[in-house]
Amino acid sequence: MGDNLDQPLVLRSDLDHVATLTLNRPAARNALSEPMLDALAARLDEVDADPTVHVVVLTGAGPAFCAGHDLREVRSNEEPEFRERLFARCSNVMMQLTRLRRPVIAQVAGVATAAGCQLVASCDLAVAGESSRFATPGVNIGLFCSTPMVALTRTVAPKHALEMLLTGDMIDATEAHRIGLINRVVPDPRLADATAELARTIASKSPMTVALGKAAYWKQRDLPLADAYAHTSRVMVDNLATNDAAEGIGAFLDKRSPTWIGS
Amino acid sequence: MGDNLDQPLVLRSDLDHVATLTLNRPAARNALSEPMLDALAARLDEVDADPTVHVVVLTGAGPAFCAGHDLREVRSNEEPEFRERLFARCSNVMMQLTRLRRPVIAQVAGVATAAGCQLVASCDLAVAGESSRFATPGVNIGLFCSTPMVALTRTVAPKHALEMLLTGDMIDATEAHRIGLINRVVPDPRLADATAELARTIASKSPMTVALGKAAYWKQRDLPLADAYAHTSRVMVDNLATNDAAEGIGAFLDKRSPTWIGS
Amino acid sequence: MGDNLDQPLVLRSDLDHVATLTLNRPAARNALSEPMLDALAARLDEVDADPTVHVVVLTGAGPAFCAGHDLREVRSNEEPEFRERLFARCSNVMMQLTRLRRPVIAQVAGVATAAGCQLVASCDLAVAGESSRFATPGVNIGLFCSTPMVALTRTVAPKHALEMLLTGDMIDATEAHRIGLINRVVPDPRLADATAELARTIASKSPMTVALGKAAYWKQRDLPLADAYAHTSRVMVDNLATNDAAEGIGAFLDKRSPTWIGS
Repeated sequence: MGDNLDQPLVLRSDLDHVATLTLNRPAARNALSEPMLDALAARLDEVDADPTVHVVVLTGAGPAFCAGHDLREVRSNEEPEFRERLFARCSNVMMQLTRLRRPVIAQVAGVATAAGCQLVASCDLAVAGESSRFATPGVNIGLFCSTPMVALTRTVAPKHALEMLLTGDMIDATEAHRIGLINRVVPDPRLADATAELARTIASKSPMTVALGKAAYWKQRDLPLADAYAHTSRVMVDNLATNDAAEGIGAFLDKRSPTWIGS
Repeated sequence: MGDNLDQPLVLRSDLDHVATLTLNRPAARNALSEPMLDALAARLDEVDADPTVHVVVLTGAGPAFCAGHDLREVRSNEEPEFRERLFARCSNVMMQLTRLRRPVIAQVAGVATAAGCQLVASCDLAVAGESSRFATPGVNIGLFCSTPMVALTRTVAPKHALEMLLTGDMIDATEAHRIGLINRVVPDPRLADATAELARTIASKSPMTVALGKAAYWKQRDLPLADAYAHTSRVMVDNLATNDAAEGIGAFLDKRSPTWIGS
Repeated sequence: MGDNLDQPLVLRSDLDHVATLTLNRPAARNALSEPMLDALAARLDEVDADPTVHVVVLTGAGPAFCAGHDLREVRSNEEPEFRERLFARCSNVMMQLTRLRRPVIAQVAGVATAAGCQLVASCDLAVAGESSRFATPGVNIGLFCSTPMVALTRTVAPKHALEMLLTGDMIDATEAHRIGLINRVVPDPRLADATAELARTIASKSPMTVALGKAAYWKQRDLPLADAYAHTSRVMVDNLATNDAAEGIGAFLDKRSPTWIGS
């Protein structure tokens, strides 16, 4: 599929505590082949273990964000074992995005389809260029987008998810914004800057606080109300005992800028 | 209540693999009396068992879509047994819509109130004319829309659901679209055509794939994230082993139109 | 913090079956100190036990609705026991709002931040002036809004909640309305009237019916679909056996106004 074997499948570049990971199979519209999923999982672990990284941006090289699974690979490997491993691996990458300590922002140019749309839904936040488009088109090729559905239906309202899943039709960035699939739509030439701005805003916070808050979000999400409050009350008390909370509250009350220690 | 006993309570007409079911008590604004619920349940089973049907459209005869329960019937039958059976039957019809193998599209002209609004919320998709209106007005007659609430609160955001439930006020089609209760608003004269267009789009897919995807949707919906991925990964592997997925993927890679076998 | 000790922390005024509770620490932007939480909990119990009250409005004195916890109090009390009690108390007030028999409408002028934003999310309904603003800014001071997150993530879509939580940025009333955090935005001078109008609409219903419906809402919310229907079907049958349902249905069929007995 025209991969350039001299290039890593997922590029990384860091600036101002923001690590940008770029899916780098533009000729294959950044399809999530098994090697690509492995490369992405490894990069995500790598940046999450790096204390200089406060925020992760996930984007794609070339005109597409990500077109989902690699259909040639899927077709040519008929063993159930391969396919089970492939979908388990893909699902694990999606859940890894939620387990990561650092927030992940999808920066979407072009199309995000099938598991590519699932990536957008699975990231904490998403910024998209105004010409970007989104679909779960598996139904058009006889292969329903059943795993993408898991992330999609936990991100947008039921009628919106079902329309995308049952029709397979593309929606544009404006509609994706309206239904809550993405946070911001910007003119295409502004995409990188707008995403970097959002990333820098979050990167300027205490990374310890952000990590603790993201973990609390994903933990409390599926709990009954009283359990969710019991868990997050505990998190608040622990958070208050940290240096950064003492510093942040002190700085706020003294009307000065805080200096984060990260603990 | 002016029923025409020569006419079935639920009409059926089929075109291009789309079965249209029409609630046919226009003089009673298509109220969901016990016989109407039984007729609807029977029709839904009938079309779902018919392999020529790929998509179901649910609509109402006359100026109203459906005004909910038949209040004269409810009032004149005071036995708790009757009432328990009535609400169990009504809830079963609503759940039947989600269990049906075929997608169901509500085609809404006029008012959809109480259990009529619940029908709209319970269908997979909904298209409405711009003069249509929606309400859960039970609170106005001392009888809170508690069962309609189940479908409504699983379709729209909490503040929107509570406003409809607590005020009993009508919302118009534009607001229903904004809050995600319906998918599309079209000029009234375009309603049948716009619904048919959406139905035909879905009817053109592999019915096996659509059935499998709809079942996966309703199954994974209430599962924890990891369980939802485990279930849908299994569905993907099974889906890939079908003839229609092989045909669909092959057609896509060969840039030709697929021919569905339905298995 | 400039509290006027001659004034109660939470004011109450009643009109037309609507009890308005006003957070009354304007100099502290109505911060939820421990005494304020206790006063609010007591007032909520008081109005809920008063049969003349049909609807509760919650608002704040002065330019802010509520700025969340009292940071000076939190900082100066370092004992884990105090802090655990504080967050437990705060979470209990939020859950009390959902357990109250009467609907609670937040009337929001100015800023609603952190636990103040959580109050808005926890109320059944919310009306806001067009200059009002909302944020969960804990992340800016090293103390993630983990308890406010519980109410926020059960009110708005995930991407919207995460953006507020991770950036700490203010959103305006228009955006809060778009994402479903509030029901209505009105010109600032119209705020009290618009809220009173909504409150009176609900206060005109049978208070027994409203109480039963609100309880059913919060009960069925987290149940699986079939269990939710089983529970609410039972509620419907019980509701039908009440005097107010008989009166309401009779009045509707006879085209007259109902007179509620309240049982």
